[in-house]
Amino acid sequence: MSATPTSLDPRIITRGREFFSSISGESPSVFNKGWWTGKVMDWAMKNEDFKVQMFRFVDVLPYLSTSESLSRHIEEYFAGDDSNIPDVLKWGATKTKFGGGLVAKVLNKTIRSNIESMARQFIIGQEAKEAVKGIKKLRKDGFAFVLDLLGEATVSEVESAAYRDGYLEVLNAIHKELDKWNALDNGAGGLDWGHTPKVNVAVKPSAFYSQSKPVDLEGTVDGMVASIEPVYKKVMEMGGFMCIDMEQLKYKEATVELYKRLRTKYPDYPHLGIVFQAYLRSVDEDVSSFIGWAREVNLPVSIRLVKGAYWDYETVLAKQNDWPVPVWTHKPESDMAYERVGRYILENSDICHFACASHNIRTISAIMESAAELKVPEERYEFQVLYGMAEPVRKGLKNVAKRVRLYCPYGDLLPGMAYLVRRLLENTANESFLKQTFADEADMDRLLENPAETLRRQLEGKCVTPSEDKGGLPRFKNFPPADFTLAAERDAYPASIAKLRKTMGGTVPLYINGQDVTTADTLDSYNPALPSEILGSVCQAGVEEVDRAVEAASAAYLTWRDVAPEERAEALLKAAQYLKDNVHDMAALQVLEVGKQWDQAQADVGEAIDFLEYYAREMIRLGKPRRMGRAPGEMSHLFYQGKGVAAVIAPWNFPMAISVGMVSAAIVCGNPVVYKPAGSSSCVGRALVDMWKAAGLPDGVFNYCPGRGSVMGDHLVDHPEVSVIAFTGSMEVGLRIQERAAKVQPGQQQCKRVIAEMGGKNAIIIDDDADLDEAVLGVLYSAFGFQGQKCSACSRVVVLDSIYDRFVERLTEAAKSVKLGPSENPANYMGPVVDKAAQQNVLRYVKIAEEEGRVLVKREVSEDLKATGGCYVPLTIVGDITRDHRIAQEEVFGPVLSVMRAKDMDEALAIANSTKFALTGAIYSRSPRNLERAYKEFRVGNLYLNKPSVGALVERHAFGGFKMSGVGSKSGGPDYLLQFLDPRLVCENTMRRGFAPIEEDDDWLS
Amino acid sequence: MSATPTSLDPRIITRGREFFSSISGESPSVFNKGWWTGKVMDWAMKNEDFKVQMFRFVDVLPYLSTSESLSRHIEEYFAGDDSNIPDVLKWGATKTKFGGGLVAKVLNKTIRSNIESMARQFIIGQEAKEAVKGIKKLRKDGFAFVLDLLGEATVSEVESAAYRDGYLEVLNAIHKELDKWNALDNGAGGLDWGHTPKVNVAVKPSAFYSQSKPVDLEGTVDGMVASIEPVYKKVMEMGGFMCIDMEQLKYKEATVELYKRLRTKYPDYPHLGIVFQAYLRSVDEDVSSFIGWAREVNLPVSIRLVKGAYWDYETVLAKQNDWPVPVWTHKPESDMAYERVGRYILENSDICHFACASHNIRTISAIMESAAELKVPEERYEFQVLYGMAEPVRKGLKNVAKRVRLYCPYGDLLPGMAYLVRRLLENTANESFLKQTFADEADMDRLLENPAETLRRQLEGKCVTPSEDKGGLPRFKNFPPADFTLAAERDAYPASIAKLRKTMGGTVPLYINGQDVTTADTLDSYNPALPSEILGSVCQAGVEEVDRAVEAASAAYLTWRDVAPEERAEALLKAAQYLKDNVHDMAALQVLEVGKQWDQAQADVGEAIDFLEYYAREMIRLGKPRRMGRAPGEMSHLFYQGKGVAAVIAPWNFPMAISVGMVSAAIVCGNPVVYKPAGSSSCVGRALVDMWKAAGLPDGVFNYCPGRGSVMGDHLVDHPEVSVIAFTGSMEVGLRIQERAAKVQPGQQQCKRVIAEMGGKNAIIIDDDADLDEAVLGVLYSAFGFQGQKCSACSRVVVLDSIYDRFVERLTEAAKSVKLGPSENPANYMGPVVDKAAQQNVLRYVKIAEEEGRVLVKREVSEDLKATGGCYVPLTIVGDITRDHRIAQEEVFGPVLSVMRAKDMDEALAIANSTKFALTGAIYSRSPRNLERAYKEFRVGNLYLNKPSVGALVERHAFGGFKMSGVGSKSGGPDYLLQFLDPRLVCENTMRRGFAPIEEDDDWLS
Repeated sequence: MSATPTSLDPRIITRGREFFSSISGESPSVFNKGWWTGKVMDWAMKNEDFKVQMFRFVDVLPYLSTSESLSRHIEEYFAGDDSNIPDVLKWGATKTKFGGGLVAKVLNKTIRSNIESMARQFIIGQEAKEAVKGIKKLRKDGFAFVLDLLGEATVSEVESAAYRDGYLEVLNAIHKELDKWNALDNGAGGLDWGHTPKVNVAVKPSAFYSQSKPVDLEGTVDGMVASIEPVYKKVMEMGGFMCIDMEQLKYKEATVELYKRLRTKYPDYPHLGIVFQAYLRSVDEDVSSFIGWAREVNLPVSIRLVKGAYWDYETVLAKQNDWPVPVWTHKPESDMAYERVGRYILENSDICHFACASHNIRTISAIMESAAELKVPEERYEFQVLYGMAEPVRKGLKNVAKRVRLYCPYGDLLPGMAYLVRRLLENTANESFLKQTFADEADMDRLLENPAETLRRQLEGKCVTPSEDKGGLPRFKNFPPADFTLAAERDAYPASIAKLRKTMGGTVPLYINGQDVTTADTLDSYNPALPSEILGSVCQAGVEEVDRAVEAASAAYLTWRDVAPEERAEALLKAAQYLKDNVHDMAALQVLEVGKQWDQAQADVGEAIDFLEYYAREMIRLGKPRRMGRAPGEMSHLFYQGKGVAAVIAPWNFPMAISVGMVSAAIVCGNPVVYKPAGSSSCVGRALVDMWKAAGLPDGVFNYCPGRGSVMGDHLVDHPEVSVIAFTGSMEVGLRIQERAAKVQPGQQQCKRVIAEMGGKNAIIIDDDADLDEAVLGVLYSAFGFQGQKCSACSRVVVLDSIYDRFVERLTEAAKSVKLGPSENPANYMGPVVDKAAQQNVLRYVKIAEEEGRVLVKREVSEDLKATGGCYVPLTIVGDITRDHRIAQEEVFGPVLSVMRAKDMDEALAIANSTKFALTGAIYSRSPRNLERAYKEFRVGNLYLNKPSVGALVERHAFGGFKMSGVGSKSGGPDYLLQFLDPRLVCENTMRRGFAPIEEDDDWLS
Repeated sequence: MSATPTSLDPRIITRGREFFSSISGESPSVFNKGWWTGKVMDWAMKNEDFKVQMFRFVDVLPYLSTSESLSRHIEEYFAGDDSNIPDVLKWGATKTKFGGGLVAKVLNKTIRSNIESMARQFIIGQEAKEAVKGIKKLRKDGFAFVLDLLGEATVSEVESAAYRDGYLEVLNAIHKELDKWNALDNGAGGLDWGHTPKVNVAVKPSAFYSQSKPVDLEGTVDGMVASIEPVYKKVMEMGGFMCIDMEQLKYKEATVELYKRLRTKYPDYPHLGIVFQAYLRSVDEDVSSFIGWAREVNLPVSIRLVKGAYWDYETVLAKQNDWPVPVWTHKPESDMAYERVGRYILENSDICHFACASHNIRTISAIMESAAELKVPEERYEFQVLYGMAEPVRKGLKNVAKRVRLYCPYGDLLPGMAYLVRRLLENTANESFLKQTFADEADMDRLLENPAETLRRQLEGKCVTPSEDKGGLPRFKNFPPADFTLAAERDAYPASIAKLRKTMGGTVPLYINGQDVTTADTLDSYNPALPSEILGSVCQAGVEEVDRAVEAASAAYLTWRDVAPEERAEALLKAAQYLKDNVHDMAALQVLEVGKQWDQAQADVGEAIDFLEYYAREMIRLGKPRRMGRAPGEMSHLFYQGKGVAAVIAPWNFPMAISVGMVSAAIVCGNPVVYKPAGSSSCVGRALVDMWKAAGLPDGVFNYCPGRGSVMGDHLVDHPEVSVIAFTGSMEVGLRIQERAAKVQPGQQQCKRVIAEMGGKNAIIIDDDADLDEAVLGVLYSAFGFQGQKCSACSRVVVLDSIYDRFVERLTEAAKSVKLGPSENPANYMGPVVDKAAQQNVLRYVKIAEEEGRVLVKREVSEDLKATGGCYVPLTIVGDITRDHRIAQEEVFGPVLSVMRAKDMDEALAIANSTKFALTGAIYSRSPRNLERAYKEFRVGNLYLNKPSVGALVERHAFGGFKMSGVGSKSGGPDYLLQFLDPRLVCENTMRRGFAPIEEDDDWLS
């Protein structure tokens, strides 16, 4: 698409000037400083900290149902140590001096009512009746409307259904009145302005189907269609218009597909629209391929073009995941895209109706001039603005374009607050056109200039940021998680799985001193979703093979320990490259061998890559001798030496990540490894052999020794030439290893170091002001992701009394909504547990849970799944659990969640801390003080505030616990490698005959 | 003293100009670039790295007795990776292209002969005969002489005696010829110039008495007098002059005292001189008090004033010890002091003869003009310059002053090289007058300007260096060791010991939860030098007291862990202040309770202070939560929490340092402590109670629990509420603790962490090019300091075959020279071992040593000492030990040293590494390659290059070993505290409703 020709600029600017002069002296109410809202906005724009606190407070406000709670939050949010509650918030309160109970109460009430009225400014009504009334008034003033029901966060199918019913309710209410409404401008055929339906609704598709997810495109579209179709039918029945809104990028593909399904299913009904977002870098392609499709199927369509409302979210998400930022990073780029794509739509007005949704007078003027130039008929485009915002703009638009439609949200204040925050953000952003125009009173020429010119000016001031890579490695970054919005990512899995099925099933030998070694004893590794499917017949090491492996490692140690740290690090980087090159094949192996979902399998491989990349950098950092002290005449260096042969005993639940983490840490420190993978994941374990071969590791440095713990476990641990034992697994085995390793064996020349990461009994606390939209999904994912088979999994949720019922209701409904079945199918939320032994163990705990508590959810395994012989267990949630129940103390390692009630935060923290474990935990709260308390008093290795308790990333969430959860070590953290190293210090006296060379960093004479 | 009046400056400058013009066009041979020496000097002045290598090579050269060794060193010193042997060194070699064996041989010979001739330039002869010949020639040229015998480093009384005999030999040789010599200037009475003896010798007193040390002023002076007196008698017999040279500052007081003794013993003999150094800040006081004394005793004296030759040494030493720098730090300050003090001496010329020793023409001119102004008779002052240096200056001086004396070193090339290095340094120093004058050809006005003006200019250019203390604590520095050149330090010990004797001997209670607790069971702690002397009757904890103490600590943990890290650190800093305020009393306690020498006792208290200061800073550093990753929308913090109750089990050998180190590390990390001191040092242990009380530690955080290991040791280790065990002691006990601690006890909620520092069997390697002056003393101190009762003590010395005999001879003589007896007397080098059990154990090992090897030294305990009942054992050195001997493998913990022979460095390293221990080690070598090899291949926790293996300082020499010497931990190092801490990570999702505040250090859009 080509940009608006600059030849048009003079006319655009002239029109813009006229527009401005037509509204001269007016200002949107939101910036009116004579009002409370205007004052708050003004303060927020001047004070970033206040803005953050204010918007967060607005967000939590609807949850503050008691006066005590309201009062407490006002104090926590606004009365920090060095500031009292800002005057602006007191505006409108009684004149009495602030302080004391009664006065505070009055103040609090005032604040609440001020914020609520602020919200009402943007919302046309809280109930259907009220909304209809508001709409009527608007129409009386000559404005058309598009109605939007607030409440897009649905966590269960019950909630999605309720949401859909909300639409049907308001449509029915309108339907009753519809005949009474005159068409605007007395349009012909009962159509507004003679060409458009009087009724117009916007729908957010993700809310209609709570199980929407990019990885499951088909299922998502099916779910959306099924849920929205009744609404569409009602709209069609009323002769109305339905617009499908565009939400976060992750739903884009499903949303477009949804449109196409509905449009082609009802080809004769033309009044269906869709939204595209000009802030996406993909917008040109999005719109042109959409219009191309319309021409292909030869059906007229309608596009509302917006700039986009999730810019912060999309940017933060991309940065957090190290994905390319999908939105334009400079505001003028979005403006340019809008003008360009808007013009393109106008060029296609024969097949595409255009709704121009913008408050930006330059943009509006550009569209108007393009339309004029292209001679687009009036009925082929219209203008839209948001209700409650930019009143002068809507007035000006009405003056010149007549066809103005207001986007009108209605619904409960609770979801309304989320909407309010978005609007407040928009209005206080530095680059907001409205803010610049009406609050900052920027120069009109600047406001109307071609955005390409604005961009040029912005970039001019910037210097090129220097790369962080100064000769060394670039700074560590986590491997990006799979982006399943990309078809290539989705298609890779079935392909890799099919490829794997063709080759798997053979004998898997040991690998000792660079040689494959077979044994008579083997153990089959099978697909837990289909136990008849064998991944491999894995050779099992006995004591003889262990001795050979330790001997090889011992011999390799003598040279490997002296290889330069940078060179050892290089081997890890090569191994990381191998995994990057084979990420889908590696992940597919886990899908079949341990029943891991696509995304989680890929995350596991990604974590393995992260360990390699991180420990490589860590070793380079630690590998540099550090000068100790600065005394002249001596040069003192502290550096590290690998401890010796490491036995690595790994679990099956993160079969690649944890294995690679422990193994690579040992190896990069100069310690050759004898690696014993878990029996259930020995094929994934064998993949490490290929990885290290690709990395060119010398023989003997990595030895692959699967085997039966009962046969060779103790022997490996006891071996006098083993110096380090890195173990991740159960507490029982971990403690046994620690005890055995502490006993010195004949011939042993060193104290063994045991790095044990063991179990957890992790709690999530739900505070009474928690954002339940997030808390419910967070708990669900923490408890049932990968069938709860993570040491970080949530197995206890501790809920504050006053929110217990609301939370439990939403949680149970959410749990009932997820799909169960083979992990191979991305539609399924939960698959089988890892093997038959695990299945038996979990079933035993389900029984204990049933005996001890009240079953809230028990998703019995379906007959279809039972028929496969797969290792399925019921997803189970049990309530009324107290801390002395076994189910509240023992680690289950499966999808069994206990719900516990706490009367207040003190008790919640006491319950959370009441087990012998201290691994992970989380809290969902919007109370700054309670978050701070949890930071200090919720004593676990990894605590998450308003996040799930699982999914730790290398470095960012360096992982590990204490008490009986581990020895107090953090894998993926800055102290981890030290455990594999012995420190050495060499101090040279550099003075000879009274003469010492003086070094630059000596503490010399100044 | 007042400075030379500036009114004199014009005359000084005029005289200086005349001086310069009288020598115009001449240059000292050392700067003559037509010669090899001049070329090398030129290169050294331009290239600092070459200078270091060259001077070090000069230093080692005399040890390189074989062609192979010479060749290897030339390559190691000069043929680095990126440079070939510099052309300058090849100068004078055959013209054939360099390379190949034969050519290299020629080159090497050339280099050796060039350097030797360089040395000969400064040395008047290698033998007495040669020296006499040289002197005669000088006298013929009209110069007087002062003769100095090279070889000031004597490590034993045999060597001191040989040194003295060297003087007698040359004096006898001169005596034979003396009558034949005409007095210079045909002076009357056979006196040169009619007033001064023809014979003049300089003596360096420390060389005459190998046991000289500042802490033993009396003994040192007695030893010096006894050894020098025969030389002085011979000088007197010959009617000669003897000048007592001034050496390092540490000998100053003894040297002055020596002068006074000799001068007053022979009051009628006037020809005795002394040297003072103008570079000392104390020079004004030194000289005025000396002349004051002369007036008091009414005896004429003579002073040679020099600037001083140990500036680098004194400065480095002071910086290393954090003592005030005793010398002027700006060269012009020394020049100013010289002029000032020189004038003062001239003002006192009635009683003090003045020898002006300087090459600086400004200085010389100033002295001349002062003398002229003060009308000092010619016979009351003379000028001295060094032989072989500054020929133009001596010529100029002779022209104007006639009375010029040359300072003439003679003797072996071996000590001669040390002298040569000093001269080379002097001539290449940037501020050297000769260099400025003759090499840099500086402006004459600048050279002659008043040094006060030079100083003003130098300071002008400097900006004030900002303090490193920016709000926080100043950077860590080690507590300075006792400076026994200060009388106050020497006097403090007898006073503190006497005070202690008045109060000691009572019952010493336990201290639990802030209360003294007495027990029925007690154990006496006694003075090992006098077992009848009881330090205290120490209450002994049983299991009941241990339970009480752990309970108190457990309770204290709940609050102490949450005290801010800065506040916990503050407690340590207060404790450090208490020790600083009571350092002598604390040290005196050790002198009596464990038989530690003054200096070592003070070092132990100093180390305790260091631990407190260092760990306080470390905790502040670690106490700051670290942000992990920089993802926007989340804030991830890594921080630490104390593990819980710590049991600290301490040894008696560093009774305060190691106790305070382990205890304070635990406490500052938030872990309350149950402290069990060793039985033999329980009174020192009790001092910790006073220390922590002074620091205001809350009750229960420190509990003092001495007790019998057999009664309560296991109980403490096994206690389920103990989380950390910090132990320093024997391997046997350490391994027992590790094994017991790994067993989980009923009720135990955490994995115990054991920090065990255990034994050593430490070796020192003596390379064939080692500087034996340093190596012998280093080995002696490492093996027998504090009776060898240090885990770092040297118990094996591995000597390269080719130097074995030379080394062993010097070592055994040195060992025979030291004094034995109560540590209370600072003259004694070695005292009793700690108690009767230790005595029995050492005696057993002495027997084993005698059986396994050849006894080289066995200093039997004298009858006097035996009579005291003290726990004395013989100082023992045994040769012909090989690595399979028990005495080469088992830790003795007493004064028994094995000497082992190695054919080459490979074998030496193999022997050094051949035990199960890996604690400390050292190597004495001047081979860059062997030092590098040792750095890599001598695998111990603390390795010292050309330093003793003992005396580790906090931070600079972070201490600890691996293998069976410990768990791979470094006390006083940057990783130490981590062992007492569990890491915690808290990650907050800061995004709400799509809105995340962006932090400054976020990885945000650029």
